[in-house]
Amino acid sequence: MGSLYFEDFTVGRRFTTPGKTLTEGEIVAFAMLYDPQPFHIDAEAAKESLFGGLIASGFQTLALCFRLFHMTGLLNAGSVAGAGCDELRWHRPVRPGDTLRVEVEVLEATPSRTRPQGTIRFAYRAFNQRGEPALSFILLHIIARRPAGNGD
Amino acid sequence: MGSLYFEDFTVGRRFTTPGKTLTEGEIVAFAMLYDPQPFHIDAEAAKESLFGGLIASGFQTLALCFRLFHMTGLLNAGSVAGAGCDELRWHRPVRPGDTLRVEVEVLEATPSRTRPQGTIRFAYRAFNQRGEPALSFILLHIIARRPAGNGD
Repeated sequence: MGSLYFEDFTVGRRFTTPGKTLTEGEIVAFAMLYDPQPFHIDAEAAKESLFGGLIASGFQTLALCFRLFHMTGLLNAGSVAGAGCDELRWHRPVRPGDTLRVEVEVLEATPSRTRPQGTIRFAYRAFNQRGEPALSFILLHIIARRPAGNGD
Repeated sequence: MGSLYFEDFTVGRRFTTPGKTLTEGEIVAFAMLYDPQPFHIDAEAAKESLFGGLIASGFQTLALCFRLFHMTGLLNAGSVAGAGCDELRWHRPVRPGDTLRVEVEVLEATPSRTRPQGTIRFAYRAFNQRGEPALSFILLHIIARRPAGNGD
């Protein structure tokens, strides 16, 4: 399946992303720049925390979900810009070695009145390797309409 | 001002973070891992895009806002976990060389019924060096109560 346009993201349509294993190195490297709390960067301190060990920053798992959907290639031609995000909830910790995959569903598609594009509300639901919910959110994504003459 | 606890985050209290200049290198490095769209990683392609040049991934600017508030040190002792994020909106592009700072306001403080902690709804509002709104969101943050005997 190639890249999709606004018209293709019909309400109820669902997509599944590849999986990604998040390593301890990635967790610590991200957190050092963006979220340097002890339970994200210090394995020894993390053992004494509520979580009992290192966990990934929630901002990292959020961004990773987008990357995974982007990896499908479906957004390559149509993505114009992100507009916002609603109802983000981190349901459980993501630990080193955990593998995330995402199910993405089109909730709503609102055409622009002035431009050849529209805003899609995508529900992202990420699960770990045991099928447990890890995080979920709604991403508002501006997607271009299919250019005239591009019938494929 | 040292680290704060749940009791200290009273509704209406406001904080201002340090500023941070986001460089082209940081923008491209983040995007290669988490958001490799042409307008985040390819300066030439970005010139032809809607934005007219490279812009930062919205996931990077979100995480950076948290990092800036964390840099105040106010969260060092009390932060237990993030719970979620609502109403994130990216108001305008953040470009290489732009400097972000954040104003954070306590919107709501809900004590836990079962644990010595509570959930704070923080409104984050980030501005660029011209004082223009760059992004805003509400972060749900679980913060510990002040331990008994810690009166400072």
